Amino acid sequence: MSRRSSTERNAEEDAGLLSGRPTNKQTVRGKWEGWVRLGLGVWAMAATAGIVIIAVLWVNTGSNGQNSKFPPGGKRNIVFMVSDGMGPTSLALTRSYRQLVDGLPWDDTLTLDKHFIGTSRTRSSSSLVTDSAAGATAFSCGMKSYNGAISVLPDGSPCGTILEAAKKAGYMTGLVVTTRITDATPACFSAHVNLRGEEDRIAEQQIGDYPLGRMVDLMLGGGRCHFLPNTTNDSCRSDSRNLVSEAQKRFGFSYVDDRKSFDGLKKGNAVRLPLLGLFAPTDIPYDIDRKAEVYPSLEEMAEVALKALEIATKDSDKGFFLMVEGSRIDHAGHGNDPAAQVHEVLAYDKTFKRVSDWIAGSKYPGVVVSTSDHETGGLAVARQLHATYPEYLWYPEVLANASSSSEYLAAQYALHSPSSSEGDEEDYIRNTLLIKGLGIHNPDDGEIRAIKEHKDHPDSAWVLADLVSRRAQVGWTTHGHSGVDVNIYGSDGTSRLGGNHENTKVGEFLRDYLQVDVDAVTKELRKKGVNRVGATGGEEVVYEWMGRPLSELKEAGFETEKLDCYHGDFKHKH
Amino acid sequence: MSRRSSTERNAEEDAGLLSGRPTNKQTVRGKWEGWVRLGLGVWAMAATAGIVIIAVLWVNTGSNGQNSKFPPGGKRNIVFMVSDGMGPTSLALTRSYRQLVDGLPWDDTLTLDKHFIGTSRTRSSSSLVTDSAAGATAFSCGMKSYNGAISVLPDGSPCGTILEAAKKAGYMTGLVVTTRITDATPACFSAHVNLRGEEDRIAEQQIGDYPLGRMVDLMLGGGRCHFLPNTTNDSCRSDSRNLVSEAQKRFGFSYVDDRKSFDGLKKGNAVRLPLLGLFAPTDIPYDIDRKAEVYPSLEEMAEVALKALEIATKDSDKGFFLMVEGSRIDHAGHGNDPAAQVHEVLAYDKTFKRVSDWIAGSKYPGVVVSTSDHETGGLAVARQLHATYPEYLWYPEVLANASSSSEYLAAQYALHSPSSSEGDEEDYIRNTLLIKGLGIHNPDDGEIRAIKEHKDHPDSAWVLADLVSRRAQVGWTTHGHSGVDVNIYGSDGTSRLGGNHENTKVGEFLRDYLQVDVDAVTKELRKKGVNRVGATGGEEVVYEWMGRPLSELKEAGFETEKLDCYHGDFKHKH
Repeated sequence: MSRRSSTERNAEEDAGLLSGRPTNKQTVRGKWEGWVRLGLGVWAMAATAGIVIIAVLWVNTGSNGQNSKFPPGGKRNIVFMVSDGMGPTSLALTRSYRQLVDGLPWDDTLTLDKHFIGTSRTRSSSSLVTDSAAGATAFSCGMKSYNGAISVLPDGSPCGTILEAAKKAGYMTGLVVTTRITDATPACFSAHVNLRGEEDRIAEQQIGDYPLGRMVDLMLGGGRCHFLPNTTNDSCRSDSRNLVSEAQKRFGFSYVDDRKSFDGLKKGNAVRLPLLGLFAPTDIPYDIDRKAEVYPSLEEMAEVALKALEIATKDSDKGFFLMVEGSRIDHAGHGNDPAAQVHEVLAYDKTFKRVSDWIAGSKYPGVVVSTSDHETGGLAVARQLHATYPEYLWYPEVLANASSSSEYLAAQYALHSPSSSEGDEEDYIRNTLLIKGLGIHNPDDGEIRAIKEHKDHPDSAWVLADLVSRRAQVGWTTHGHSGVDVNIYGSDGTSRLGGNHENTKVGEFLRDYLQVDVDAVTKELRKKGVNRVGATGGEEVVYEWMGRPLSELKEAGFETEKLDCYHGDFKHKH
Repeated sequence: MSRRSSTERNAEEDAGLLSGRPTNKQTVRGKWEGWVRLGLGVWAMAATAGIVIIAVLWVNTGSNGQNSKFPPGGKRNIVFMVSDGMGPTSLALTRSYRQLVDGLPWDDTLTLDKHFIGTSRTRSSSSLVTDSAAGATAFSCGMKSYNGAISVLPDGSPCGTILEAAKKAGYMTGLVVTTRITDATPACFSAHVNLRGEEDRIAEQQIGDYPLGRMVDLMLGGGRCHFLPNTTNDSCRSDSRNLVSEAQKRFGFSYVDDRKSFDGLKKGNAVRLPLLGLFAPTDIPYDIDRKAEVYPSLEEMAEVALKALEIATKDSDKGFFLMVEGSRIDHAGHGNDPAAQVHEVLAYDKTFKRVSDWIAGSKYPGVVVSTSDHETGGLAVARQLHATYPEYLWYPEVLANASSSSEYLAAQYALHSPSSSEGDEEDYIRNTLLIKGLGIHNPDDGEIRAIKEHKDHPDSAWVLADLVSRRAQVGWTTHGHSGVDVNIYGSDGTSRLGGNHENTKVGEFLRDYLQVDVDAVTKELRKKGVNRVGATGGEEVVYEWMGRPLSELKEAGFETEKLDCYHGDFKHKH
């Protein structure tokens, strides 16, 4: 291009641009200028739309297809599941057992395994090994507290729970368990007491007799004895209050207490909320022992809860918060009973599947998060029986041979009288307890003797369970809890819990997902305390509705605040 | 707007559009028309650039910031780390120990914890409880095999390994361990034998004396005794071959065997590959016992390997494959020695940090993947010492009080003579072994007696370790392995290993990340077998270079193929 023509062209274009009049060039270009403008406009808008679409997809989709962000607003549901006492080994134990009994391939897995996302560190404020109370307070309040604390902090003040905050925000709320509904895990969502043993008081708070009033819309589980007056045989209360009657009359609960009335709920389609369902005086039997015609399963109770809460929130702009606990995995761990445990974990896994399928099929956003409070038993699928070096194996078939829990058999044995039709005591032990109950045909004399010596003894179930564990080559290190990290499972939308976390992060997740104000509940609860002069002369806040003040417990030597200093206080270092 | 003016306007615009001449409206609009066109163009291009940028970010980034895709082509590095025998409890154990001794907050974590992504199911083809050979074959070949198999399948045929395939594809290769370099884990990457015990033959293959020739560019660890002729004191070979000399003369290795020559490598800057470094006759001492002036640490060896391989691949279009094993976490588990174990895990965690920092800082794409082959010991941070119900706690401080492994102390005790300057036997036990060695000031008479009875006994270290474990309230169920799932840790780019997987998926990941052809190596190896008539009359393929044929082992009752049928073959069911 010559300098002249370039100058001419530039002059023409400048003139056209400034005057708005066409130059010679503009006259020619004008024929397609509209199309250029149209094309640019379409391109720009399409590209912008593309950005928006991709950005939205990006925000909502993680690398493994999980939603990484919460729904920004609107109705949503959470089912929070607790596998009490289930450590990492329980999964390997139950997975292999299920492959055996159901004839599944060696790489078949539990539903839980397919939803594994992370692990949780479980220590409490008072020990490297937590109990269920401190464990559940980490979930319910999102705070570390001491072993024994039911949604109370180490300073003795109550902390608001996710269930209470959800209820106040307009969500419906429910608790489903297989142990006493007053036990530590469900209690931590629905009550505040300084020590978990105050189950009478917990029951009172759960029906609504505490400063916040009724917060729970649905409760299904065991623990009826804490609701019945001590004038009745079924009661374990220390007073004569009839909380079933109070729940119905003062707080409007409907009440069911057996299989027939449970079936009348019609899988949740015929529930009148609030609902109180108490199907056993204390624990619902282990799943291995459970008579389906007497007791509903965890899965059935969860099914009722999901449907009832779905219907109840049909016309609401809020969804529900439901806690479902596989409570007795922990009990099987305490009992060191691997046969009872695999059935408890299988029942929990089935319930998890039902819940996660429900969440996936709901037209509203929702998540299921499942984790444990701690491991129980120091379970290992390996056990050295002799001083000789152990083989590398364990035998799931031994667990398949058992048809009862050792707890059940020990209770039966305690009732056995020598004049029984089942023969003399040793016949009874060999035939009824061992062959029929545990599938064990080869007891040695020492084992028979140990069983006899422990008849009606608190440890009798432990003695029976040990026969099973030894033959399966399954090991345990304690009848208490252990400090290993526990697994976290979740549906799409829970990837924030991927990786390794303190257990309090699980509580924070629940709060953030529901977008509710737990702190506001804490503030409200703290206003329900009264100032008084404490034992040491200083002023303290006392929450009379929570029972015996923590200061009194501390004076008696009870430790609650060791979070920052406790690393094991063994004193033999000089 | 009237119909007339609308018609006038449309006519004007049509005229202008068709003629290119300005209408009255165009004359006015012309003043900003160029700006509109310019603006549209900028908008369109910016939006398009936005799409491209967001799309690229989306493809490369998962929900937690991890790369979810592999680099499509070009140079890359993998460091695969194996924490042999480290189960879930080892982390809780070591994390709390470190918080104590380093004065860290209660929520401080190991570097590993921050990279936790998933878990691995570990069963082998022959048992629910794997050994390290089958475990490492799952990683090296990506296939399940039997306990004892060194990259050999249950049918007795060799399977190509990720290291061999990487070498053939042009990558550099390395192995770094703290046990014998001929032990199962490193052997599985660099050798093929039917039973792991054939360590002499493994050593021969590792230096290059097998059908594929030399495949390993760098080996650092222990196990010198398998390389030295049985005419020397340091040897554990059954023949008089000098593999150190053969490595140097036939295969061109440079050789180092002590701290001084290791330091001469100048942190990897002065390495001539191939390099063989054997720093102990068998195992390098436990980190708790290791004299830094005599033995390099795992971290130091990894540092040398990373630098040497980085330099060696500087001008290559391929990177390297390096396997680094924390070998003796497993040994501390076998010994049930929690004090030795926390030091092994800490050494491994430091090494993981160095490796992951190196990967993050490299200018080439790369990943570090860390997992275990299995758990060892049935470790639990909980131990019931008495029939009374246990407290919920354990004591890390007990481990901090120990300054030697029980293995080291037992070896010292075996050498102790009554005429020693350290006093009579009981003084020696109390002062040297217990107070000085283990920090234990309160042995009871039974403990002293048990120690004496086990002097120079194979179990003497176990007796000492038990004193520590009991006081720490740390439990074990076996001196062998257990079947719990083990953890997987990874850097950015490893999210495919998130969740719960069979251990073979780890091997598949390594292969896919490096884009190498493991199957081609398998085919090549299988050509190195010869047909013969087997013991049962049928034809079989025998790989003489792999040692005693598997068919002979099977005739002797050795089981290799129970993958699909083995679920525990306990026979007491009637």
